[in-house]
Amino acid sequence: MAEGRWMVEVIVMPKEGVNDPQGEAIRGGLRALGYAGVRGVRAGKVIRVELNAAGADDARAAGAEMADRLLANPVIESFHVAAVAPVGVEA
Amino acid sequence: MAEGRWMVEVIVMPKEGVNDPQGEAIRGGLRALGYAGVRGVRAGKVIRVELNAAGADDARAAGAEMADRLLANPVIESFHVAAVAPVGVEA
Repeated sequence: MAEGRWMVEVIVMPKEGVNDPQGEAIRGGLRALGYAGVRGVRAGKVIRVELNAAGADDARAAGAEMADRLLANPVIESFHVAAVAPVGVEA
Repeated sequence: MAEGRWMVEVIVMPKEGVNDPQGEAIRGGLRALGYAGVRGVRAGKVIRVELNAAGADDARAAGAEMADRLLANPVIESFHVAAVAPVGVEA
C-alpha cells in the first residue's frame, strides 16, 4: 500500500498493583451514585495519532515506538496499540 | 448466564471540534522527537469498570449508563463501550 494517512489508537493503563487515584475517585463516585456492584475501576488514557505511513504495519510500529518513547511511563504504565485504521480523504 | 463479574471498558474522547490541549501537547512532543509525519493527536480516557452483572448485555448497559451519568461530560465528550468481558475467578 502506498504512503497514506493512518489513525493509530494507543491505550495506556496503570500497571497492575500501581496506585490509580483517578480510578479510585471514579469508583467512589459510582458508589455514591448507587452502583453497589462496582468492584473496581482502573483509569487510563487513549491517544489517537493520525500520521503518514506506508501501510498498516508501518503505522502500528510507529505508534508503538511513540508510546514507548513519549506516551507511556514504563515504570508505572503499560500500553498496547488497540487499533490501526486508514483515514479517508473525506476526514 | 448467572450473576458474575464483568469488565466493561468505556472510551471517552473529546468531541470533534472541541479543543484538546492534552492532544496538542502530545503532538508537540512527538514533533519535537522528530516525528514529522504526525498530522494530529486526540487524547481521551479509558475507564475499565469491574462489576457484578447478570450477563454481557447487562454489563454493557450498566457501563453505558455509568458513562452517561458520571464518566463523560456530554457537552464536550462522547463515549462508547469498547469491550465487555467476563472476569475469571483467578483475577
